[in-house]
Amino acid sequence: MGLQTLTEPTVLDATLRHLSRTALPKVLQVQQGIVRATHAFMFKKGLTQLMPLMLSPITDPLNHGVVDATIGYADQRWSLTKSMIFHKQLALLNPALDSLYIVSPNVRLEFADRAATGRHLFEFTQIDFEFKNKDRFFVMEFMEELVNFVFRCLNEEIPEVLLELRGELLPQYEKWAVHRTEKLEETYGPDYERIVSEQATEPFWLLNHRREFYDKEDPKKPGTYLNYDVIWPEGFGEGLSGAERENEYQQIRKRMAEVGTSEETFAHYLEVARTQGLPRTAGGGFGVERMTRFICRLQDVDEVTVFSRKPFTTAAF
Amino acid sequence: MGLQTLTEPTVLDATLRHLSRTALPKVLQVQQGIVRATHAFMFKKGLTQLMPLMLSPITDPLNHGVVDATIGYADQRWSLTKSMIFHKQLALLNPALDSLYIVSPNVRLEFADRAATGRHLFEFTQIDFEFKNKDRFFVMEFMEELVNFVFRCLNEEIPEVLLELRGELLPQYEKWAVHRTEKLEETYGPDYERIVSEQATEPFWLLNHRREFYDKEDPKKPGTYLNYDVIWPEGFGEGLSGAERENEYQQIRKRMAEVGTSEETFAHYLEVARTQGLPRTAGGGFGVERMTRFICRLQDVDEVTVFSRKPFTTAAF
Repeated sequence: MGLQTLTEPTVLDATLRHLSRTALPKVLQVQQGIVRATHAFMFKKGLTQLMPLMLSPITDPLNHGVVDATIGYADQRWSLTKSMIFHKQLALLNPALDSLYIVSPNVRLEFADRAATGRHLFEFTQIDFEFKNKDRFFVMEFMEELVNFVFRCLNEEIPEVLLELRGELLPQYEKWAVHRTEKLEETYGPDYERIVSEQATEPFWLLNHRREFYDKEDPKKPGTYLNYDVIWPEGFGEGLSGAERENEYQQIRKRMAEVGTSEETFAHYLEVARTQGLPRTAGGGFGVERMTRFICRLQDVDEVTVFSRKPFTTAAF
Repeated sequence: MGLQTLTEPTVLDATLRHLSRTALPKVLQVQQGIVRATHAFMFKKGLTQLMPLMLSPITDPLNHGVVDATIGYADQRWSLTKSMIFHKQLALLNPALDSLYIVSPNVRLEFADRAATGRHLFEFTQIDFEFKNKDRFFVMEFMEELVNFVFRCLNEEIPEVLLELRGELLPQYEKWAVHRTEKLEETYGPDYERIVSEQATEPFWLLNHRREFYDKEDPKKPGTYLNYDVIWPEGFGEGLSGAERENEYQQIRKRMAEVGTSEETFAHYLEVARTQGLPRTAGGGFGVERMTRFICRLQDVDEVTVFSRKPFTTAAF
């Protein structure tokens, strides 16, 4: 028997193999089509585009812990932004802005337990949008229309790529089903989201998640929340998360206390809410790589990346 | 005489005033038009879009010093990316990718001396593009065509906004003038770029800058470089920088030594160049805010931002 030469591939080998995959350019064409169609849809609907910000004194506290990502510059601490939530809400203080969107990298340094979910990257692109003086019903309809628009564009522009990667063209959906977390949990137990996503053949809405302070609590039904997620079918899981937003000073403080968000970190934000008031807004954000994954029916969202960004993977570039 | 109550505005006041400016939504419409038209142009020309990466073990060393922006994650150091230069070059190792572009935030933590230039932000958006097996003549023509395409789209889509902000519609240019740094310096002294930009009424090319190692040295004329910048006219200064790229191992090492780039930091990159070779590429990148500034004839590039990112300005958000 010869000498065993089975060795772990080096980081560099793995990186070069990952970026040289034959399927990659086609997956990227789908992703590019999503982005381009989304820009066209947003323009058609009159939303103003903002450029992303990667650094800010405040950022999304998220609903789960991640590794701290802050740097020092100009005598301040800056967080790498985890979403554009506060910037889109604050930008709508401009009297002439009624709706906006941002195509933005989000940096979320996930712990190792999310490395193998198939749904997490430690940086990815989110398309975040927000409307002034609109409610959840408006945003949900907007998103349903956006998905149909994007799918129609892709069917027209790159049908052969879709046939190769997906096995069929993309559907046009009627109204999506609406579920509530508490009802599904009653029926399916704690793993309800995965189970119902696997059974579903169309995207559906999932309402009422207990999470970050900025999602509005139903004033008529304390303890329930006016938020809504899109769950992709066929087991692909969460694809968008959105909500009507808390905008009243005392209510924000109450919710911060409940979920354990530091008032000190958000001192400026609270001051705006207290003195001039935050606008009443609703919006959402969807992950570009996750939509690409769903459309291409990929095992792992990391198949969409050119340079792997799977949580806790060592990288050469 | 009453008590003097002239006080410095607080950071929060300044932030809210900045984002509430009346002109802002119109400036953003111009910027959005640039981005949307660029996506359309890139698609028409067959370039594949890549999503930006904000973190990488290596990033653009730049031609001038900035404050370090690195974080620790997963037992590695990660730099906030200052451009997509290495990622776009490496991605072209994929045999089925011939050209690509990336709309990407760039984080460059400038020192205080760049606060008042009117041309610097410490984070901004760059549109980076790169072609395999193309030369500078191809890229320069591509960029000239892109600018005419973007300007034509803006004239068609938002003529009234242009008239209000710019005073007139955008021009269509013929071939741009081409200058060489060494000739202009001879004539105008060290401040040649500003002087010639102020005199110019159309964009022009500026060739041969001595700078980062990755810009190709002319093999026939050592000490001159196959790079090219776009200089906006009317004093608006640099708008794009690009080059044919160094791709040969020994030549890269020679250039790194000359400009003082650490081989250790770039060990993986050098290994790719040594073992399988880097593709021969050429490309460039233009600043979205700077193009917006030029079109809207703004005093300061920071007038394009919703949240000020002027170097060394304290920020609330």
